[in-house]
Amino acid sequence: MEKRIETNKMQMNQLGIVKRGIDRADAAAVAQLAGFGVATIHEAMGRVGLMRPYLKPIYAGAHCCGTAVTVLLQPGDNWMLHVAAEQIAPGDVVVAACTTDNTDGFFGDLLATSFQARGARGLVIDGGVRDIKDLTAMQFPVFAKAVSAKGTVKATLGSVNIEIVCGGAVVHPGDVVIADDDGVVVVPAAMAQQVADAAAAREANEAAKRARLAAGVLGLDMYAMREPLAQLGLRYVD
Amino acid sequence: MEKRIETNKMQMNQLGIVKRGIDRADAAAVAQLAGFGVATIHEAMGRVGLMRPYLKPIYAGAHCCGTAVTVLLQPGDNWMLHVAAEQIAPGDVVVAACTTDNTDGFFGDLLATSFQARGARGLVIDGGVRDIKDLTAMQFPVFAKAVSAKGTVKATLGSVNIEIVCGGAVVHPGDVVIADDDGVVVVPAAMAQQVADAAAAREANEAAKRARLAAGVLGLDMYAMREPLAQLGLRYVD
Amino acid sequence: MEKRIETNKMQMNQLGIVKRGIDRADAAAVAQLAGFGVATIHEAMGRVGLMRPYLKPIYAGAHCCGTAVTVLLQPGDNWMLHVAAEQIAPGDVVVAACTTDNTDGFFGDLLATSFQARGARGLVIDGGVRDIKDLTAMQFPVFAKAVSAKGTVKATLGSVNIEIVCGGAVVHPGDVVIADDDGVVVVPAAMAQQVADAAAAREANEAAKRARLAAGVLGLDMYAMREPLAQLGLRYVD
Amino acid sequence: MEKRIETNKMQMNQLGIVKRGIDRADAAAVAQLAGFGVATIHEAMGRVGLMRPYLKPIYAGAHCCGTAVTVLLQPGDNWMLHVAAEQIAPGDVVVAACTTDNTDGFFGDLLATSFQARGARGLVIDGGVRDIKDLTAMQFPVFAKAVSAKGTVKATLGSVNIEIVCGGAVVHPGDVVIADDDGVVVVPAAMAQQVADAAAAREANEAAKRARLAAGVLGLDMYAMREPLAQLGLRYVD
Amino acid sequence: MEKRIETNKMQMNQLGIVKRGIDRADAAAVAQLAGFGVATIHEAMGRVGLMRPYLKPIYAGAHCCGTAVTVLLQPGDNWMLHVAAEQIAPGDVVVAACTTDNTDGFFGDLLATSFQARGARGLVIDGGVRDIKDLTAMQFPVFAKAVSAKGTVKATLGSVNIEIVCGGAVVHPGDVVIADDDGVVVVPAAMAQQVADAAAAREANEAAKRARLAAGVLGLDMYAMREPLAQLGLRYVD
Amino acid sequence: MEKRIETNKMQMNQLGIVKRGIDRADAAAVAQLAGFGVATIHEAMGRVGLMRPYLKPIYAGAHCCGTAVTVLLQPGDNWMLHVAAEQIAPGDVVVAACTTDNTDGFFGDLLATSFQARGARGLVIDGGVRDIKDLTAMQFPVFAKAVSAKGTVKATLGSVNIEIVCGGAVVHPGDVVIADDDGVVVVPAAMAQQVADAAAAREANEAAKRARLAAGVLGLDMYAMREPLAQLGLRYVD
Repeated sequence: MEKRIETNKMQMNQLGIVKRGIDRADAAAVAQLAGFGVATIHEAMGRVGLMRPYLKPIYAGAHCCGTAVTVLLQPGDNWMLHVAAEQIAPGDVVVAACTTDNTDGFFGDLLATSFQARGARGLVIDGGVRDIKDLTAMQFPVFAKAVSAKGTVKATLGSVNIEIVCGGAVVHPGDVVIADDDGVVVVPAAMAQQVADAAAAREANEAAKRARLAAGVLGLDMYAMREPLAQLGLRYVD
Repeated sequence: MEKRIETNKMQMNQLGIVKRGIDRADAAAVAQLAGFGVATIHEAMGRVGLMRPYLKPIYAGAHCCGTAVTVLLQPGDNWMLHVAAEQIAPGDVVVAACTTDNTDGFFGDLLATSFQARGARGLVIDGGVRDIKDLTAMQFPVFAKAVSAKGTVKATLGSVNIEIVCGGAVVHPGDVVIADDDGVVVVPAAMAQQVADAAAAREANEAAKRARLAAGVLGLDMYAMREPLAQLGLRYVD
Repeated sequence: MEKRIETNKMQMNQLGIVKRGIDRADAAAVAQLAGFGVATIHEAMGRVGLMRPYLKPIYAGAHCCGTAVTVLLQPGDNWMLHVAAEQIAPGDVVVAACTTDNTDGFFGDLLATSFQARGARGLVIDGGVRDIKDLTAMQFPVFAKAVSAKGTVKATLGSVNIEIVCGGAVVHPGDVVIADDDGVVVVPAAMAQQVADAAAAREANEAAKRARLAAGVLGLDMYAMREPLAQLGLRYVD
Repeated sequence: MEKRIETNKMQMNQLGIVKRGIDRADAAAVAQLAGFGVATIHEAMGRVGLMRPYLKPIYAGAHCCGTAVTVLLQPGDNWMLHVAAEQIAPGDVVVAACTTDNTDGFFGDLLATSFQARGARGLVIDGGVRDIKDLTAMQFPVFAKAVSAKGTVKATLGSVNIEIVCGGAVVHPGDVVIADDDGVVVVPAAMAQQVADAAAAREANEAAKRARLAAGVLGLDMYAMREPLAQLGLRYVD
Repeated sequence: MEKRIETNKMQMNQLGIVKRGIDRADAAAVAQLAGFGVATIHEAMGRVGLMRPYLKPIYAGAHCCGTAVTVLLQPGDNWMLHVAAEQIAPGDVVVAACTTDNTDGFFGDLLATSFQARGARGLVIDGGVRDIKDLTAMQFPVFAKAVSAKGTVKATLGSVNIEIVCGGAVVHPGDVVIADDDGVVVVPAAMAQQVADAAAAREANEAAKRARLAAGVLGLDMYAMREPLAQLGLRYVD
Repeated sequence: MEKRIETNKMQMNQLGIVKRGIDRADAAAVAQLAGFGVATIHEAMGRVGLMRPYLKPIYAGAHCCGTAVTVLLQPGDNWMLHVAAEQIAPGDVVVAACTTDNTDGFFGDLLATSFQARGARGLVIDGGVRDIKDLTAMQFPVFAKAVSAKGTVKATLGSVNIEIVCGGAVVHPGDVVIADDDGVVVVPAAMAQQVADAAAAREANEAAKRARLAAGVLGLDMYAMREPLAQLGLRYVD
C-alpha cells in the first residue's frame, strides 16, 4: 500500500499541480526585450532557447512578449487552460504543452476573451487552436502547431506553472517568451536584462552593417571572409 | 469469363459512375447554417463530421457553405471535375477526394470560372490546386491539401456523386459542407435543420458567456469547475 | 431547454453507443478471403476500400483477416477498447479510429491478452500501440499509425460498432478486414463472396503470367502494349 | 598518398568551387517569361522542371523571375550565400540547395539588403529563412522550405554556380527561375525563348476558353469529352 | 566592448562546455530499472518523461538502460560525440540532441566501437545515424530520428553534460534513460529507486491481471467499469 | 500551328522517350564498388550523390549495386516500368522517379519476376511498392518511399533512360547506384573507378582506426582534436 502512495506522490510532483506566486522576470527587462525581434534575441542568447519552427502565428504579423504562465495539457482536454486563467497577471504570455502529440482546438475566442481580460499578451501552444477569425479580429496573438475546429473536454488533470517542454524548448514559469513571424524564443528569467543588453548591442551593430551592405559593400569584404575561405581551399573558376 | 464480368460490375459500383438528381439538404436550413462558423457547427453536431486539419483555405478569410457535389478523382487526373461541373446546381460546394495521396494541381482558374458560372460556392479538395492569384482575385473559396502548379491529365475514370471520404470524413452528395479558417465540417443532409437549431442555441449561449468573461469573471467560477477539480486532486502550491 | 435535448440526442447518434448483434460477413467467404493478399483483394475490389499507407504492421509478416468490430476512440482515452472486448466474437478483427489525430499507446499486452481470449484475430488502429515486444511474442497482429509507450485514461465516451473512418476508409461493423505487409483493405460484408471469387480468378491468372515473365517474356509483348504506346507517341532513340 | 589527392580532386569537382562568368539565358526571353505565371510556364514546358510544393512564398503575392545563381550550402552554414552575393548580376534570382535536409534560418534582412543592392530579384531556398517582417517590408520575394529564427555559422565550404537539385528539380546556373503563389519552375537557359513563345500561345488560348466557360459552356462540350468518357464506360445513373 | 564579453559569457553558459564528474543515478536502482520495459516505467513515473515516438530503434529488439551522458550537437557536426566519448563511464547511455532539426548521420561504427570500448550501453540521438549493418552486428542499441549515410564535419562547438531536450523530454546528465521497442523514457536520477519500486509493484500487479484476462474475464468486470460507463450515458442497442 | 509543334517537340525532349544503348559504367569498377557500403562510397565521393533518407529498404539487410536504367513515371501509372524492362541488361538497377509526389504501389512481384529474369539487381523508386512478402521471399532488393497495395494504370507516357531526379539526387542512365541499410548513393559512370579506389583506401584506413578505438584509444587523441577544440574555446568544468 505504501508503494502505491509513493507512486501517487511522485506523479503529483508533476501532474495535478497549480503553482501560485511565481517569480516573473524583471518588468523593465521584459519591456526592453519587447523591442527586439525573435531572431535578434536568439542571437543575443548565444543561439539557445528557440522553439522548433512548426509553431506558427495564426495571422501574419502576430507578435508578443511577456512572462510565461506555463500549462501542461492532456490530449483532447483544455481544462488546465481555464485553471491557468486565474494565474495570469497583466503582461503574461500563456505557454501550453501537451503530454503527447495532439492537434485539437484547445483554445478559442471565449478563452481568449478571458485571457485578455486578465491581461495576457498572447498564447504559445504546442497543439491546435480554433476561432481564427475572431482571434484575428481581437488581434490576440497565438502561436500554435495546428488549427482545428475540434473541441476538447474537461476531464483530466494537467498542471499549471511547472517546468514544461514546448516546441522542444524548456520553459519555466516566469521566463520571458518572445514570439513573432520568425518563431518563438524563451529567455530564462534570470538572464532577461543581460539578454536585453546584448540584443541592444547587436541591433546597433546591425544598423551600421545594413547601411554598408545597401551601399553595395560585399559581406566578403565587410566581414573579411576572403582569406579564411581561401585557406579552406575555395577556388574560383571561369 | 463470367468472373471477369462480376469483377467489372463490382468496380462499376464505385468507379465510372455519375449520379444525377441527388437529394440536397433543405435550402432554408443551409441558409441558416451559412451564418455559423465551423467550430460552432462542429460542436452543435456533437463533435463529429470534421475533416482533418491539413485541409487549408488558399487565402485568409475564405469561407463557404453549400450542398455537396462529391467527386472521386484518380491521382494526376482531373477529368471528373469537368464531369462534375455539369452536376453543379446553384448553392453547391464541390467536394473532391482522390483514390490515393496526391498533391497535383487538379483545379485552377478555368475550372473555377466554369464552377462559378454554374453557381458553385466553393471547392473542398483532398489534393492540390493552382492559379492561387486568380482564385484569390475571383474570391472563389478553395480548401485544399496543397498548392501545386503541376497540371493533370484526363485519362482515367473516377466518379461523381458517390459516397467519398475527404480529409478523413464521410461525405454523401447533398450533405451540407461548411468551410472557414477553422476547417471543414460535414452535416448530413437529414440533420441540417436540427444542427442549425442547435448551433443557434449554442451561439446565443456563447454571447452571454463572452460578456461575462470579458468582464473578468473566470471560467473556473462561471462553469463551476472548482469542486470537480478539487475532487480529482488538483492542488494549489505557493 | 428542448434544443439542448435535441443536441444531446443528435450526439448520441454517434457517441456513447454500443451496438450488439451486428451482421457479420459470411464465414465461408471470410475464410476464402483469408487466403489472398491485400493487393490481390484490392484489385479484385476494383481498387477501392484501401486504407492509407501510414498504417503499418508492428512486426514483419503480421497478417490477419476477419470481421470488423469497430471502435471510435477519444484522444488519449482507450476506454472503448475495453467496452469493445465484450462484443468480440471468434474470428473478429477490431478496427479502431479516433475522433482526432493522436498517437498515444491505446493498446498493449493486457488488452491483447483479453482480445485473444475472446477470439480476436488482430487489431487495426488509427493511433498508437505499445508493448511491441510482448505483442510480437504473442504473434498478435497489429496494424497501427504509431508506436508509443504513452498510456491512456478511461474518462470519455466513444462508441462501438458504428460506421467509422479508419486510415481514410469507411468501415462498417461486420465488414471483412484483411491486413498484411502491403496494407489494410476493407471488403463490405455484402460483397465478401463476390470479392473472394474475383480474387481467386485473379490469382489463377497471375500464376500463368508469372511463369511467362520468369521465362523472359516481356510485359510489353505479353500485354500487347507496343501498339498503344506507339499510338501515344512513344519514341525509341539510340 | 596519391589516392588521397585523387579523392580531394574529386570532391573539389563539386565542393569548394565558385564559377564566375556563367552563361545566362537571353534577357529578352527572360523579360517575356516574367509576364507569365508558373502554372502557364510549367504547361508550356511540357510539365517538367517544377520544384516540389513544399517550397512556399514567405508572403502572399510574392513572385519573381530571373536567371539563376546557384548555391550549394552545408547544414547550419550560410557562408556560401555571402560568396554568392559577389556573383549576382542585376536580374538574377539566387537558388540555394543544401547537402542535407535542414531548416535553419540561412537568410535574413542583412543578406537581403546585400542581394538587393547587387540587383537580385529574389531567393529560392531549400532550407529556412528568417526576418520575415523585414523581408516583407522590403518586398524581397523569398520561396523557402521553412521559417526559422535559428542562425547559421560560417565554417564549411559549399559551392556557387554548380549544377544543384533544389526542391527536387535540377537547376544550372543561368537557367530561368520563375516563382509565384503556385510554386517554382526552372526553364533551361537554352529553351527560354521557345518556352516564352509556347506560354504566350497557351495564354492567348486560355482567354478564349475562360470567356466561354464564364458564359456557362461546359468543359465537357468545349473539350469534346463526352465521347471518350462514354467509350471508357462512364455511366450516368439517376 | 564589455557588452560583447557579456554576450560571449552568456553563450558559454550553454555552448562550448564539457562537464566532468557528473552525479549518476544510484547503480543498484539503475540495475533494477533495467528489468522493466519503457511502458511500465513510464506508468510508474506517473506518465511523464517520455520522448516523442519519432525516435525509433535501428533494429528490432534493441533495448538499453543506463545513466545519461548528454550531448548538444550542431547540425551536420558530430565533434561533440568524440568529446563525449571521454566522459563515458561503464553503464552510461549517450543521449544526444541537436540545436536544430537535422537528420545527418552523426554516428556510425567507428564511434560505436569507441563508445563500446568505454563501456557505453547505447545511444539515443535526436538526429540521424549510419552503418546500420555494422551496428546491428555489434548489437549496439541505437534509438534515432533517422538513418542517413550523410557524414558530418568537426567544425563547431556544442556541449557535453548540460541539460538538453531530446525527443521533447528534458534530460540531465546522470538521469536514467531506458529505451526499447516502445520508446525512450527518462527517470530523473533522484527518483531512480522510487520509480524502480513503483515499477516492480506495477509489474506484479499486471501478472495477476493478465492471467484473469487470459481466462476470459472482461476488463469491464475486472476493473468495475460498467457503472461509471452507464453513469456517463453509454447505451447498448441491438 | 507551328507554335504548337514547337511545344510538342520540347515536351518530347523529356517525355515519351526511351533511350536504348546507354553507356554503362565500367563493369570492373562496378564490381569493386559492390564491395563497399553506401556510407563509405558517399565519403569517397566527397559527400555528394546521396539520396534523401526517406527512401528505405523493404526488408532488413536489402542491398544492391549496379548500373542505372532510369525511369520517369507519371502518378498512379506504372506503364514505363514495363517499357523499362526491355532495356535492362544483366547487372542493372532500375531507378524510378515520378513527376510528382505519389505513393501508389507501382511495382510488385510480377514486375520483379520480369526484372529478375532480365538480370536486374534491384529497384530504387521514389514512390510506393507492394507484394512485400513475395519480394522478400525472392530477395529482390527494393528501396522505396512507401509501401502501398494501391495498383496503378497504364495510360500516360513517361520516359526511360533520361536524366532524372530521384530522392533529391540526379541520376543519369549508366551511373552506378549502390543501396543498403544506410541509404542510396549515385556514382557518375565516369567516376566509378576513381571512387572505387578512394573507397578502398578509405576502408583500409578505417580498419586500423577501428582497432585502436576498440582498444580504448579516444578519437580526441587519435585524431588530435584536443588543440583545435581548446582554440575554439571548449572549456572543461567540474
